Amino acid sequence: MDSIASFVVPNSSCLIYTDENGVTALPSKASQVNNEEPTNYTHPKVPGWFSEYSPIWPGQAHFLKVEKILFQGKSEYQSMMVFQSSTYGKVFVLDGALQLTEKDECSYQEMMTHLPLCSIPNPEKVLLIGGGDGGILREISRHSSVEEIDICEIDTMLIDVYKQFFPDIAIGYKDSRTLFLNSVPSGIYDAIIVDAFDPIRPDHELFESEFFELVSKALRPGGVLCIQAESIWFKSLDIEQLLTKCRQIFKGCVDYAWTTVPAYPRQAKHTSNLHHIHPCLVVLGVIGFLLCSTDGPCVDFRDPINPIDPESYGISKQPLKFYTSEVHSAAFCLPSFAKKFTATEAKSSGDEF
Amino acid sequence: MDSIASFVVPNSSCLIYTDENGVTALPSKASQVNNEEPTNYTHPKVPGWFSEYSPIWPGQAHFLKVEKILFQGKSEYQSMMVFQSSTYGKVFVLDGALQLTEKDECSYQEMMTHLPLCSIPNPEKVLLIGGGDGGILREISRHSSVEEIDICEIDTMLIDVYKQFFPDIAIGYKDSRTLFLNSVPSGIYDAIIVDAFDPIRPDHELFESEFFELVSKALRPGGVLCIQAESIWFKSLDIEQLLTKCRQIFKGCVDYAWTTVPAYPRQAKHTSNLHHIHPCLVVLGVIGFLLCSTDGPCVDFRDPINPIDPESYGISKQPLKFYTSEVHSAAFCLPSFAKKFTATEAKSSGDEF
Repeated sequence: MDSIASFVVPNSSCLIYTDENGVTALPSKASQVNNEEPTNYTHPKVPGWFSEYSPIWPGQAHFLKVEKILFQGKSEYQSMMVFQSSTYGKVFVLDGALQLTEKDECSYQEMMTHLPLCSIPNPEKVLLIGGGDGGILREISRHSSVEEIDICEIDTMLIDVYKQFFPDIAIGYKDSRTLFLNSVPSGIYDAIIVDAFDPIRPDHELFESEFFELVSKALRPGGVLCIQAESIWFKSLDIEQLLTKCRQIFKGCVDYAWTTVPAYPRQAKHTSNLHHIHPCLVVLGVIGFLLCSTDGPCVDFRDPINPIDPESYGISKQPLKFYTSEVHSAAFCLPSFAKKFTATEAKSSGDEF
Repeated sequence: MDSIASFVVPNSSCLIYTDENGVTALPSKASQVNNEEPTNYTHPKVPGWFSEYSPIWPGQAHFLKVEKILFQGKSEYQSMMVFQSSTYGKVFVLDGALQLTEKDECSYQEMMTHLPLCSIPNPEKVLLIGGGDGGILREISRHSSVEEIDICEIDTMLIDVYKQFFPDIAIGYKDSRTLFLNSVPSGIYDAIIVDAFDPIRPDHELFESEFFELVSKALRPGGVLCIQAESIWFKSLDIEQLLTKCRQIFKGCVDYAWTTVPAYPRQAKHTSNLHHIHPCLVVLGVIGFLLCSTDGPCVDFRDPINPIDPESYGISKQPLKFYTSEVHSAAFCLPSFAKKFTATEAKSSGDEF
């Protein structure tokens, strides 16, 4: 049994600042470029508003008005904050980075879950790495074929905070098929969903580490991985290079999809200290998904052969809000500027997107 | 000949504020709720940053860092500002509202143009209402079947500012097929593109006005209209109601598509004093398009039967950046929460989206 859990949780410090009127936040030290001290930031700050700003996406900031701070705390691994926003419902902030809002978490959680699980017949064993909020568990629970949901999430405080403040998301933990793991067996998973990292790209150090090898080994032949990847608007994204690298590692089919999450000021959901940060453009409201299958039965990710039973809510009290089979297939239609990168010879450092 | 031009250009005052360090902006008086004075706003403001904030989308603000203000001025109709941003290229601001950025104008201009023009065979006469920046002219010019492009845009200062600061967008004016109109003949246009209003919905006063009747009359049988509509994330959007209303007016086919424009803090491209403002949620980076055809040959907007010749750049120096036939069809795949509104009985004021 190889251990994956140790790769999962960032061990970064918190730089959330609070004043009398509200809160603004900086990313964790792990995310800083050139090891600048936070006091050196030219950080747009407005009393009473939460803002996420980082040198890795300079020149823009998204502000949400804070009605009330509901929770602030620090676990062994990371700092957390929950606040009531004016218009996005409750908002969860991890190490200064916006993680999710009640208003739009559906698009991320549903696409992250159903893109892989609806692409293979009868998934039975699913591994979730990260995803401590419980939302992906909630979505997995809609699949009645699933017999076991293993989760690697070692920050129990994060889970408790979600259970207290976001019961409609953490409801996923009520699925009795859920098991907590500290290490991961090989070759048994139909699907692995990784909900823990900053967006990845081929020059990401994760690709040089053993993490993807371990994930690949944990999948059965023809098993599938879904992990958040760069936004298509990311200046340096070379989708073809990303897919080529993944084909080498996973030896099966790979593909790239995208969707919108309005509140995301960048495409990262989680902050990690594992990555090499590229001081490049990132953009609002768009995230990408990388889908990989291991050598085995061919997987056409664009074809949702295993659609969700609309009558089966699983542990959730509500039907799907975002995902449909049509949206699944449409998510793979890339804009012209992203498609052009599939021609390797078109790539140059001067590309505008 | 009925006049349309008088509906096109807002006559609103400018509330752009400049300080030593940069600029922040408020929407025009026409957009204010309860006729509040601008000084009463709880407006998030950061020196050196441009922010767009309005009571019609409370609780959030998107900031762009200003490198340099390149132009500020006021025409007979509206105020304008051009600044160099850190990461979105040059940015054009009209009456305090972000109009476009060099980085992402392609997705709006291309979708707005090619969704209607690729849905009908051999468009010959096209009318553009608004669109003074020239970007939609640039995109229309890719269609070699077009014989005449009429444009209603009476703010010549706006055109001059775009020509000076955004030559790659205003290049559309170099298309020799372009004619300026002050009034519009009836029944002759294959396609009309309206690039001038805040997003529309059925309770929009435009629907009660003669504007849509005039647009409808200006189209030939089976001609098509494209106009920006609400974001799918807009809380009160009832797509079915919108489509029903349009079917009554246009008597042909209607449909709804969407796409992403990262820099848009709201879904409006232009500010108008004609609309009734709904103090509701609007969201980042997503805009909708309403497509209508008049009684005549059936138009299936989801099927781009008139694809763009990839070798034909028209007046542009570059190939398409965003639009593809795949993206065209995918734009009509709506998320589950938007699709549910197509069942009229599901609509209630308590809907969360």
